[in-house]
Amino acid sequence: MSTSIKQIMQEIGQRARVASRAMARASSEQKNQALIQIAKVIRESATEILQVNSLDVEQAKQNGQDAAFIDRLTMTSKSIESMALGLEQIVSLTDPIGQVSVPKKQASGIEISQMRVPLGVIGIIYESRPNVTIDAAALCLKSGNAVILRGGSEAIHSNTLLAKMIQTGLSAAGLPRDAVQVVQTVDRAAVGEMITMTEYIDVIVPRGGKSLIARLMAEARVPMIKHLDGICHTYIDADADLAMAVKVCDNAKTQRYAPCNAMETLLVNQRVASQVLPTLCKIYQDKGVELRVDTATRKTLETAGFRGLVDAQEEDWSTEYLAPILSIKTVDNLDEAINHIERYGSKHTDAIITKNQDHANRFLREVDSASVMVNASTRFADGFEYGLGAEIGISNDKLHARGPVGLEGLTSLKYIVMGHGEIRT
Amino acid sequence: MSTSIKQIMQEIGQRARVASRAMARASSEQKNQALIQIAKVIRESATEILQVNSLDVEQAKQNGQDAAFIDRLTMTSKSIESMALGLEQIVSLTDPIGQVSVPKKQASGIEISQMRVPLGVIGIIYESRPNVTIDAAALCLKSGNAVILRGGSEAIHSNTLLAKMIQTGLSAAGLPRDAVQVVQTVDRAAVGEMITMTEYIDVIVPRGGKSLIARLMAEARVPMIKHLDGICHTYIDADADLAMAVKVCDNAKTQRYAPCNAMETLLVNQRVASQVLPTLCKIYQDKGVELRVDTATRKTLETAGFRGLVDAQEEDWSTEYLAPILSIKTVDNLDEAINHIERYGSKHTDAIITKNQDHANRFLREVDSASVMVNASTRFADGFEYGLGAEIGISNDKLHARGPVGLEGLTSLKYIVMGHGEIRT
Repeated sequence: MSTSIKQIMQEIGQRARVASRAMARASSEQKNQALIQIAKVIRESATEILQVNSLDVEQAKQNGQDAAFIDRLTMTSKSIESMALGLEQIVSLTDPIGQVSVPKKQASGIEISQMRVPLGVIGIIYESRPNVTIDAAALCLKSGNAVILRGGSEAIHSNTLLAKMIQTGLSAAGLPRDAVQVVQTVDRAAVGEMITMTEYIDVIVPRGGKSLIARLMAEARVPMIKHLDGICHTYIDADADLAMAVKVCDNAKTQRYAPCNAMETLLVNQRVASQVLPTLCKIYQDKGVELRVDTATRKTLETAGFRGLVDAQEEDWSTEYLAPILSIKTVDNLDEAINHIERYGSKHTDAIITKNQDHANRFLREVDSASVMVNASTRFADGFEYGLGAEIGISNDKLHARGPVGLEGLTSLKYIVMGHGEIRT
Repeated sequence: MSTSIKQIMQEIGQRARVASRAMARASSEQKNQALIQIAKVIRESATEILQVNSLDVEQAKQNGQDAAFIDRLTMTSKSIESMALGLEQIVSLTDPIGQVSVPKKQASGIEISQMRVPLGVIGIIYESRPNVTIDAAALCLKSGNAVILRGGSEAIHSNTLLAKMIQTGLSAAGLPRDAVQVVQTVDRAAVGEMITMTEYIDVIVPRGGKSLIARLMAEARVPMIKHLDGICHTYIDADADLAMAVKVCDNAKTQRYAPCNAMETLLVNQRVASQVLPTLCKIYQDKGVELRVDTATRKTLETAGFRGLVDAQEEDWSTEYLAPILSIKTVDNLDEAINHIERYGSKHTDAIITKNQDHANRFLREVDSASVMVNASTRFADGFEYGLGAEIGISNDKLHARGPVGLEGLTSLKYIVMGHGEIRT
């Protein structure tokens, strides 16, 4: 059984590798044509998609999956239209492939530039969200890559149908159907093959929860563009505009609780704690946010009449709640804030609220996170908000792409050397 | 024993991590001052260095190491001066750290830019070449990183002394001594720890032969900037300037045999094979280069009176000789050349000799190598020749740095978000 999964995956890998060469050569027009065709097919086949998706949903319900799971799995007329619009938006993005930097002439006479090229074959491993099939495939296609998609097994019927539609679009544009392949087997061993077949897959982009990422990190040999968690901090400096601090920190925590860029820990300078915390924490408590606080913060808040506070435990400082829970610590100064973030953070997104330019600069320079912000909500850490036009994922790693990853993160730069018969002496 | 090595390495890692934060904050002046001081100490201590190095050399001779090994290990007054000059050259390079791109204002009002920052802690694993201790440490320092150096055990006395001198220079500049640490234990388990301690080391740069790299690749969990081998091709197109082809192909193969950017396989278009191969192969044979040829090439050369040709076997096409041996294949056209490189190459450096702009463009776009060249010797694939000012290594991988890697390859970009109280809606 395991051997046969290996064979299946190797064949998928080989076909992807062959297709990736044609994709690397494809013109922007061809790639855009494919995306337009896919959008068209999806719109025309909405009824069929809903029918097939309902099979997956029915099965998942019988398997006892919870409401959130069913919600992610379920497609609607609206979500189908949203996929089609997403495809059309990717058409409008500039094609990064083939861009060449200004050549620099060297003493030897050779001229050096760099050309942006696709990575080759991308593997996407994701949970049971059929919309990822379209989103991820579209970004990989536009950036000239072939892609192998392995979605959650509960979405297999939906994903298989969507893959067929993508392949129809590829064919219509004269591109190889193998440029987008959906792994049909639901055997989990397929994932094990994907994350180790370095000869066929250049990078894996996992999309899913922390447990999925942690499992993949433990075994992957193929490089990944990923983040494990987002333990995002906001530090309210002594020199902060406190009204701004209240507005931004409210947004960072409560605008949505589940995203990885939501604030999990609030750090507040002791000199302004008693001025800002009561107003801010009133908002949190009114919205039902549980507050886990250190001793100093408890004192400040209890003096102001707050009740129902929870004592923060050591593990709270390194916990990504993704829920209406916030840990709060009062710190002496900027150094303590930076040290706390260094010790407990996850290098995702951290913000300072301050009017002090020196403090802002130190925070920007010294906090070693993918995104560092001054006077803005951590919720802005997002490919669309950063103007990338799209987002395949977010990386907390420092090599290659860091922070929100758009089309460029799926590309590489190769050196181009233009000579005139030069030899090395 | 193995536990104690683990402890030693963890402590080195922790100290490096702490030092890396100070290095990230260090000014260009401080870093340059450290480099200047190290150069000064090295020059002043040349006699001591030679004495200590002779202990290593003596021991290596007793251990029966071959002449090439002894040559790499042996330091001379000249090589010491060359190290000092290397340090001074790195002083003159622009400091990449802290550079910020032009901010782009988004619809929300936030301004997005990227800041160049150090990777953090670099691990260098290398063979018994003491000069690498200085070269690699200097590049890591200049790029604001801390570094853990693990050289070949036969160079341990030399490396330990050089590390002390580096630390003296760091102290003189007010930088932490732990920013450069040499692993003192000669136990090989130390390498096993380095390549798996992802919490303390951000990237490993291995410097050494293929067997070292292959061994590390099999077990590393820390990302590496590396190349396994350089199977470099030159393709002489039907539209080539044949005199140029002879000059460039001679240089690519024979200027030096051992570097990874030396040509290993010559591909020649069948329409010009009989015009160019006799002149070129005469040069090769005069220089003692063994020619391993396919049937068509043999026919061409034997018709021209050549003898002593070897039949190329299948494995020749994927062999990095690093020696006076060249494989030669006659191909029908550009497509066959590109396909051959795709199949047998190592994605290092490949060149085309042609006057045909379309063929040049196709070769540049379609050959998936770190460096692709037109009308130049593959021997140019080098950080200094590309104007990077330095080279920590060459990468054949597509993620992060690709091709010759200079200071920038030891850095990362983080996102900087400047807000004015913006919140996400």
